[in-house]
Amino acid sequence: MMDEKTIQEMIAAGRRFAHSQFGTQIDYLSDQQQKKPQPPLVKARMSDTPLIRLPRDFESLSLNRDVIAVMEQRKSSRVFTEQPLTLSQLSWLLWASQGVREIRGKSYATLRTVPSGGARHGFETYLVIRKCESLPAGAYHYLPMEHALEWLHPIENLEESVVASLCDQRWTARASVVFYWSLVAYRCEWRYSFRAHRVALIDAGHVGQNLYLAAAAAGLGTCAIAAFDDEIANGLFDLDGEEEFIVYSAPAGTIQAADQKKEKEFYRFVEEEGL
Amino acid sequence: MMDEKTIQEMIAAGRRFAHSQFGTQIDYLSDQQQKKPQPPLVKARMSDTPLIRLPRDFESLSLNRDVIAVMEQRKSSRVFTEQPLTLSQLSWLLWASQGVREIRGKSYATLRTVPSGGARHGFETYLVIRKCESLPAGAYHYLPMEHALEWLHPIENLEESVVASLCDQRWTARASVVFYWSLVAYRCEWRYSFRAHRVALIDAGHVGQNLYLAAAAAGLGTCAIAAFDDEIANGLFDLDGEEEFIVYSAPAGTIQAADQKKEKEFYRFVEEEGL
Repeated sequence: MMDEKTIQEMIAAGRRFAHSQFGTQIDYLSDQQQKKPQPPLVKARMSDTPLIRLPRDFESLSLNRDVIAVMEQRKSSRVFTEQPLTLSQLSWLLWASQGVREIRGKSYATLRTVPSGGARHGFETYLVIRKCESLPAGAYHYLPMEHALEWLHPIENLEESVVASLCDQRWTARASVVFYWSLVAYRCEWRYSFRAHRVALIDAGHVGQNLYLAAAAAGLGTCAIAAFDDEIANGLFDLDGEEEFIVYSAPAGTIQAADQKKEKEFYRFVEEEGL
Repeated sequence: MMDEKTIQEMIAAGRRFAHSQFGTQIDYLSDQQQKKPQPPLVKARMSDTPLIRLPRDFESLSLNRDVIAVMEQRKSSRVFTEQPLTLSQLSWLLWASQGVREIRGKSYATLRTVPSGGARHGFETYLVIRKCESLPAGAYHYLPMEHALEWLHPIENLEESVVASLCDQRWTARASVVFYWSLVAYRCEWRYSFRAHRVALIDAGHVGQNLYLAAAAAGLGTCAIAAFDDEIANGLFDLDGEEEFIVYSAPAGTIQAADQKKEKEFYRFVEEEGL
């Protein structure tokens, strides 16, 4: 058992990290200030498979478009009915969470549906697709500039691999698609150096929130997961775990109102322990 | 000048912190597992000033309620017209970012408009109000259980204090209200111990994103800020900086389309440097 003093030191370190630290005068120049070349805004294609263009006709999607209702109804869902997502639904989820709307300057920054500190947008989106109209199961990479997907590779024992990557949360096996967002660290470090990572974690929350809202609007369910296994999650997409690594994830799928009772099972301990 | 080796070590430490680390087997029991008493879900009232109840009639607010348009139009705004917010507008922003919809169990967790890891919701919302209908300028604390505000104290040299707290970003002086979200660290550590802080930062992004969307829907402007001065920001609300400290902030205010040119001034460097 780890000793209490070490735990307390680790907690203190976590608290320090959670502070902004932008008020602390530290004499250094970021790579941006040193005029070092800016890293690419998005990761290059990882395969030579054909581009899978995603439909942008969100108007034709069956959405609850009332923002008050969507915010009111957003919740975490862990019980999925395992229907395939339509390509339009998947497209909507991807656009809401990481869609590019504009380029600032020649190639200084992407402006997206979510904000990012210094508009660095350090994330790549990877999917494990299990059930989506017309797309074979396996690993995919989102190309935000083209609003398209590229097929990467099949995943052996897909359900078990997903569950293992998400620290054995068994309900995740039934998701139709699992979002994994990686951080390409230098994309943010170029501007923010050692202060980049705290900002990037906050940015991951922006992405997660828009996925939740987009899912709520589309009548789909999701439950974001920060507790994953770094090595297994990175391995799903051959990420090196140093320059690029998964920072957040979210299984998503189809849901039905009749499963509300099953959802409550996840919180049985609250009643059992009289909390 | 800080030496390059130290900077590289700090960057490496940041990257490590940004990893989930939930897959790493560390033998310990969280305070929750040890059945230690759960901390309160929200901070107790900090003053004996009268409760300022906030209107919940969002239906009567002038909102763009189309979630597609709201997501499409969300952007960062730094040029404010300095009109007072209405109490309904402020109420909408507070509800969207931290409103409580339900209590799970007797008092196990709050369920809010935003998700939070383990439903810990470690945040408190503080406001520096400069211009809001019927509310004197000064520092306020949001009471999410009551959806109400409590007046804390006036702030001397309010505009200058805000600017100083936000690392001298001068445009923040013109905000009608500035949101400051603190983390009450033990509320999350009780469940997640040394892994709490990474999760809490992601949660702060959920909050920020909903504020952005709520502002976009209401035709208001905001630009969230992760780069603040810890000591000055904590000092605004007499937070100790250890158990509770500011983790994210967002000045908000009224905007007008005619100011788009002024907004672009903030990015003049992109053109000047040919980026």
